[in-house]
Amino acid sequence: MKLEGIIAYPITPFKAENQEVDFDALTITLNALLEHQCDAIAPLGSAGESAYLSWQEWQQVAEKSIEVVNHRVPVILGISELTTTMAIQKAKKAEELGADVIMVMPISYWKLTDQEIYDYYQQIAAATKLPMMVYNNPATSGVDMSPELIAKMFQEIENICMVKDSTGDIQRMHKFHELTQGKLPFYNGCNPLALEAFCAGASGWCTVAPNLLGKLPNQLYQAAKNGDLALAQSLFYKQLPLLRFIVQGGLPKTIKAGLNELGFSVGDPRKPLQKANPSEVNQLKSLMKMAMAT
Amino acid sequence: MKLEGIIAYPITPFKAENQEVDFDALTITLNALLEHQCDAIAPLGSAGESAYLSWQEWQQVAEKSIEVVNHRVPVILGISELTTTMAIQKAKKAEELGADVIMVMPISYWKLTDQEIYDYYQQIAAATKLPMMVYNNPATSGVDMSPELIAKMFQEIENICMVKDSTGDIQRMHKFHELTQGKLPFYNGCNPLALEAFCAGASGWCTVAPNLLGKLPNQLYQAAKNGDLALAQSLFYKQLPLLRFIVQGGLPKTIKAGLNELGFSVGDPRKPLQKANPSEVNQLKSLMKMAMAT
Amino acid sequence: MKLEGIIAYPITPFKAENQEVDFDALTITLNALLEHQCDAIAPLGSAGESAYLSWQEWQQVAEKSIEVVNHRVPVILGISELTTTMAIQKAKKAEELGADVIMVMPISYWKLTDQEIYDYYQQIAAATKLPMMVYNNPATSGVDMSPELIAKMFQEIENICMVKDSTGDIQRMHKFHELTQGKLPFYNGCNPLALEAFCAGASGWCTVAPNLLGKLPNQLYQAAKNGDLALAQSLFYKQLPLLRFIVQGGLPKTIKAGLNELGFSVGDPRKPLQKANPSEVNQLKSLMKMAMAT
Amino acid sequence: MKLEGIIAYPITPFKAENQEVDFDALTITLNALLEHQCDAIAPLGSAGESAYLSWQEWQQVAEKSIEVVNHRVPVILGISELTTTMAIQKAKKAEELGADVIMVMPISYWKLTDQEIYDYYQQIAAATKLPMMVYNNPATSGVDMSPELIAKMFQEIENICMVKDSTGDIQRMHKFHELTQGKLPFYNGCNPLALEAFCAGASGWCTVAPNLLGKLPNQLYQAAKNGDLALAQSLFYKQLPLLRFIVQGGLPKTIKAGLNELGFSVGDPRKPLQKANPSEVNQLKSLMKMAMAT
Repeated sequence: MKLEGIIAYPITPFKAENQEVDFDALTITLNALLEHQCDAIAPLGSAGESAYLSWQEWQQVAEKSIEVVNHRVPVILGISELTTTMAIQKAKKAEELGADVIMVMPISYWKLTDQEIYDYYQQIAAATKLPMMVYNNPATSGVDMSPELIAKMFQEIENICMVKDSTGDIQRMHKFHELTQGKLPFYNGCNPLALEAFCAGASGWCTVAPNLLGKLPNQLYQAAKNGDLALAQSLFYKQLPLLRFIVQGGLPKTIKAGLNELGFSVGDPRKPLQKANPSEVNQLKSLMKMAMAT
Repeated sequence: MKLEGIIAYPITPFKAENQEVDFDALTITLNALLEHQCDAIAPLGSAGESAYLSWQEWQQVAEKSIEVVNHRVPVILGISELTTTMAIQKAKKAEELGADVIMVMPISYWKLTDQEIYDYYQQIAAATKLPMMVYNNPATSGVDMSPELIAKMFQEIENICMVKDSTGDIQRMHKFHELTQGKLPFYNGCNPLALEAFCAGASGWCTVAPNLLGKLPNQLYQAAKNGDLALAQSLFYKQLPLLRFIVQGGLPKTIKAGLNELGFSVGDPRKPLQKANPSEVNQLKSLMKMAMAT
Repeated sequence: MKLEGIIAYPITPFKAENQEVDFDALTITLNALLEHQCDAIAPLGSAGESAYLSWQEWQQVAEKSIEVVNHRVPVILGISELTTTMAIQKAKKAEELGADVIMVMPISYWKLTDQEIYDYYQQIAAATKLPMMVYNNPATSGVDMSPELIAKMFQEIENICMVKDSTGDIQRMHKFHELTQGKLPFYNGCNPLALEAFCAGASGWCTVAPNLLGKLPNQLYQAAKNGDLALAQSLFYKQLPLLRFIVQGGLPKTIKAGLNELGFSVGDPRKPLQKANPSEVNQLKSLMKMAMAT
Repeated sequence: MKLEGIIAYPITPFKAENQEVDFDALTITLNALLEHQCDAIAPLGSAGESAYLSWQEWQQVAEKSIEVVNHRVPVILGISELTTTMAIQKAKKAEELGADVIMVMPISYWKLTDQEIYDYYQQIAAATKLPMMVYNNPATSGVDMSPELIAKMFQEIENICMVKDSTGDIQRMHKFHELTQGKLPFYNGCNPLALEAFCAGASGWCTVAPNLLGKLPNQLYQAAKNGDLALAQSLFYKQLPLLRFIVQGGLPKTIKAGLNELGFSVGDPRKPLQKANPSEVNQLKSLMKMAMAT
């Protein structure tokens, strides 16, 4: 399995009246996302509010997503758990449900040593045959894995075959390349770094952006791949103000606001997260309009 | 309710064979803790591995702890939850079980705005009559609440009547004093700041230290209270190397190692957390010996 | 030489018309400072805009200050230089002029290794018989010396016999105490930490505050020394808003504004530094009034 | 004047016996540098140890450099001063000596407000007709200028027509582009960001690397300019380990060590800076060999 290009992140819609998962809206938004030339779909990531779902909800969203995608592109399921036991339980369930890849990130309350992180991944890997993408996102998880640790796990733990880095630090990507002589495929999870990550050799861009920007992310990917730097710059700078806005405002809030504006009824994020306020909605609408203008 | 002095944190013992909660060991360690002149007991805090327990286990530990303490001192139950819904559920249960105070901290995956934090506390407060201690510990929770926000909640939300700050930043304590004209009782949750927090006017020291150091924390409190600075300094510097060690190593790992050395069988922390390695255990034994030497 | 208590920092007055050093105003402000129960005077420190003076001006200010103080209390001359050669030149001049102590801090453009810092101090020490105070203030110098490095220099370089730490990190003071078994006298250079530094065992408070607050800093020192914590807290919280204001606004700007308000004509800081604007002056006046109210 | 491509930084050679400026070695190294397809030469920058030179030495190095370059490419003189007065003095001298551009950076002891920085630049601009490059390098200067401030100065102060950013933060470059609609030419001063800065639209790379890597930096620039991303990546990853090494070790120390290895006799950096130790020299030699291997 070699993933390349745009790995798209759906949100998890909630019903307006009771914050329960809205499976009909999930189907609709997933199908819409698939029309935007995405190379893979990654449910239950950070944008999917995975951290705020119960174990039962996680299973239901996973199952429904795999059913809706229906092998059109690979499905990458997100697993971000405090305890090793719960992460293993989800990994097994992902395999049983037919996911293609799991994207795994430890969550910390107490800081983890490198050995604790290593064993967390190894024990999950031992419980499933699925390929694993290591996910590093210290801003949400409280765990920052060094490129050295990630390269070591890639070399020693068989299932680990990719890494998604969301730190926004391009030097990490340089390190992945150097430490593995270019063998470890790395994916960029920081939207405002999309252009440069491709230039540094990233295999793909993990992004929620196609929900609001349609095919633009894919066009940027193609331009960079074709070495048309002038076009890539132009496409990137066009999207950048929106990309920065959604990152700064938090993905669930801003993407849900945008989708609601586009006519999808996806509800609001789960409490304590709050929906975008009117001023934020206006700013978002104007940024979406700017980015989509020809 | 005006709490003063040493607020002691028990760990949550697990059985060696299966990592299940060990209620017998819980009883024994709680009773031992109460012999060390503690002014309150705070189960299910950071040191209590609350974040790694299931909802059912949380209830069982809360119930058992309240039963064992049996009104000898007040019981402060820790509530640290990602979702408002779950935090409310725990607050109601705490009241039902007979807790005296709840210590509440929001956990973040997506960063929270001040308004989101305010509403989180307000909605919990609306669901219980229990007095609430605001708990700020960004290193574990990912949420850093400013003194200004905490003072505002203290002034506007009735149940909120105390704050525990674990940042180790003495200037925060100065701010609590200034912003509320000395009315907001503040408690120090950073062990290596114990001496100076008392000097700055802290009402108490929230600490796991009595598990390993017996009455020493209380003696430090008494010396500071009596204005015997020379004695307070001497007692503090005696404990400091151990206090720094348990903070740097992580409380569940180091306190469980220390209790096991003292003959209590409290098991290991829950995975992915690992027990202290032999070199850490040796260092800990030597620091305990030094601190307890007369 | 054992210094204890309040080490007061004069500013360097400039003439309003041409930013030249105003030696008459220097004499007047120094004499005023000496009336506020200071235990030592430290010209040409950070507050004295030493970094903005020419080599000739530095010598003139040093000479005049020593003459005005006239052995009433010890004089500590500040030396903060990028090159070792220039620092040695100043150290020799300080000795020739009759200074009692030199307070030495390396300035960085390129970051310095511990060995480079060590050799800087050692080569200065070899050029003078004067006792040296190591001065650590990374916010202004760009050099952060660890407690371990400072303790090592104290133990190995004969002239080094004191340290002034301005980081505001109380844990550094704990480290000085521990690493030298209480033998290294440490002084606090962070005004908003004045209370706690004394509680942790600091020998003195290096401060510009007496310029605006008269005997209040000395009263805080006496209260802490006498173990009257309630009085010390009260005196500290009274001064704290002003102490925070002068640190945040920058000492040369705020202290000169305050002295000008008090009727001393000390001019403005040297460009690019600018004088306090009217709103800052008003805030300062109100904070001075509050602090001095009985 | 539109500068594009490789802006090369010479070091300032010192005589081994007495640390005086070695003008013969300066001539030789400048001529060698000019053979490596550099588009401009920038004496007296960070790498040139400008901060450690006297006013007289600065003038002599400036004069000699301009004479040696002799209009083969533009000369950009570095001016980094604590006081506005001294910066103006250097700007006038640069114009008198025939420099083409001045690269100006404020140095802080006391932190500067945006207004203080703005006035610093404006007063220098008023004193010279030379075009000015704003230089932002907080790690050495202690001053961090926001993209917003820099864009404002570019729009309001006539002489300011370029910016060199050495923070290594690619998002700053995005901001320059956005805030000025692509009108402000920006140059990258962080060596390990060379590839991505070009991809983001940087006009040039300000670098000391040609001293040790000959034409490699220029080849990277050409590949990026031609949209040959695969070649650009290959050229970049080849140089990267050396680029990282010289940044982490400090430019004067590592570049002088490398030049000495290459047979130029450029001496050592000025004290307190020390020369590379034998282990660093060996590492450097092996990295130079790797980078230059075909």
